[in-house]
Amino acid sequence: MKKIKIKAPATVANLVCGFDILGLCLSEPYDVMEVSLLDEKKVIIHNEGNSSLPTEPHLNTAGAPLLDMLNEIDGNIGFDVRILKNIKPGSGLGSSAASAAGAVVAANHLLNNKFSKPDLVRFAMSGEKVASGVKHADNIAPVIYGGTTLIRCIFPLDIVQIPAPQLYITVVHPQIEVRTADARQILRKEVQLKDAIKQWGNIAGLVAGLMKSDYDLIGRSLEDTIIEPLRSILIPEFSKIKKQCIEAGALGGGISGSGPSIFMLSKGEATAKEVEKIMQRIYNAISLHHYTYVTSINTEGCTILSQD
Amino acid sequence: MKKIKIKAPATVANLVCGFDILGLCLSEPYDVMEVSLLDEKKVIIHNEGNSSLPTEPHLNTAGAPLLDMLNEIDGNIGFDVRILKNIKPGSGLGSSAASAAGAVVAANHLLNNKFSKPDLVRFAMSGEKVASGVKHADNIAPVIYGGTTLIRCIFPLDIVQIPAPQLYITVVHPQIEVRTADARQILRKEVQLKDAIKQWGNIAGLVAGLMKSDYDLIGRSLEDTIIEPLRSILIPEFSKIKKQCIEAGALGGGISGSGPSIFMLSKGEATAKEVEKIMQRIYNAISLHHYTYVTSINTEGCTILSQD
Repeated sequence: MKKIKIKAPATVANLVCGFDILGLCLSEPYDVMEVSLLDEKKVIIHNEGNSSLPTEPHLNTAGAPLLDMLNEIDGNIGFDVRILKNIKPGSGLGSSAASAAGAVVAANHLLNNKFSKPDLVRFAMSGEKVASGVKHADNIAPVIYGGTTLIRCIFPLDIVQIPAPQLYITVVHPQIEVRTADARQILRKEVQLKDAIKQWGNIAGLVAGLMKSDYDLIGRSLEDTIIEPLRSILIPEFSKIKKQCIEAGALGGGISGSGPSIFMLSKGEATAKEVEKIMQRIYNAISLHHYTYVTSINTEGCTILSQD
Repeated sequence: MKKIKIKAPATVANLVCGFDILGLCLSEPYDVMEVSLLDEKKVIIHNEGNSSLPTEPHLNTAGAPLLDMLNEIDGNIGFDVRILKNIKPGSGLGSSAASAAGAVVAANHLLNNKFSKPDLVRFAMSGEKVASGVKHADNIAPVIYGGTTLIRCIFPLDIVQIPAPQLYITVVHPQIEVRTADARQILRKEVQLKDAIKQWGNIAGLVAGLMKSDYDLIGRSLEDTIIEPLRSILIPEFSKIKKQCIEAGALGGGISGSGPSIFMLSKGEATAKEVEKIMQRIYNAISLHHYTYVTSINTEGCTILSQD
């Protein structure tokens, strides 16, 4: 195999009470990436469409992980990468993780799966570092493993797949900019012990709810009293959207990644579509341009579109 | 049925990273409680053996919950309670919870299970309030439900049973006094966000590990970087015991409740017995009087010894 084309999916990180540890892979939206083998030790990046992302490999979220990967391979081998971005950078839907993880998953196929999944996560984290200055894996892991993933620990890396029942995810991406740096700065370095205890009760409940397919328990556990109250201030109409969506039957939800996208989980597709209408109505009322998605959990992660 | 005799088991609360939320029911030690129906609205408490515990019902951990229960029953009915304590008060093994929960479980049998388990937890928490001034359910819930229980939320009460694989528990109870008030006072009111994130990664990993019967994951998740470093100072040789027990094959462990008992979890009984020897050797070396137990998870909670 010399060339492979894959889907690199969007992800929801910071899953409500799972701040920094729990991520979820989405069926849509996704980037399309085509990676070809080169017989020279280098990486070439092509951004297709209207992209302003850098093409210098070491500055590109797909390029940096591939350079790391090449450092662990003998011989004259390299990668040519074409990226068609559908996941909007700055959406909070893991755009950089899709590029970083998609690149190494595709490249690893071309290398007959020389590297393990934890290796791929390790390489891909270099892409997150390029994008945000911080190596984090909570968007990377769900792209590589699929489904719902727990980052129990980042150093040393410990990824745990959490089985989940069928869930529909409704996402709204309001066209405002929330800089990751601002979203980080708004957080407090210290939290009240009583709030932390509440949060670890909820994350334990959420993991148990997912593994037991107990939708009520999932809903009760989707509560974040630490991060959301601070960050939601940056997102117009957050409380109104959340309240109305839950009243319409959504299990719960919150800020996707560091925002500005908001996601809601529903047991059924009909509810998820009703939730979409609520999101649209609320943002239309204030003339805020936005995109919405109704999608499901992607249990595969990256999938192959073609190879030759 | 006019009279019932039950076993009211010991429990481990504050299960490492599950501070204030996760508890475990033990097969041993246990109290024996005999409860008889009276035809008068009152509660009589008899402490058998060498007990210095109060017998005034409203000051007794078994009496206060029964008074609460009687408040919700019409008619002239009451309870006579005989308590044979084997779980030492102040051990950190849920002595007060065994009395409080055992009393209401036994009484509820005499009432043909008039009350639900959440009701029983609610009554029994009054006993914890008598014992420590605080209504908490992390020892109560495992006595009433058996097995491993998560208190996702205390107000409103939300108890989740967490399925667990077979585990052996080794407990050492050094004969020193750690006052619950001191153990509470040593805690900080605020914690670093980064430490809290580590803790919720671990509790998520522990719940997943228990539900997946993944012993390695259970072991990796048995880490508490928030409470244990502060409280373990009050327990002689804590670090030495923990280190040597893990080297001998234990999965991990920590302080039981607010101490001074230390517990370690093992996959196999042989390891659990080896762990017991280590605990005995270390405390014998400093001539510290102590009790040890090697036991398993009690999935039943209270069990009936006789009834008539």
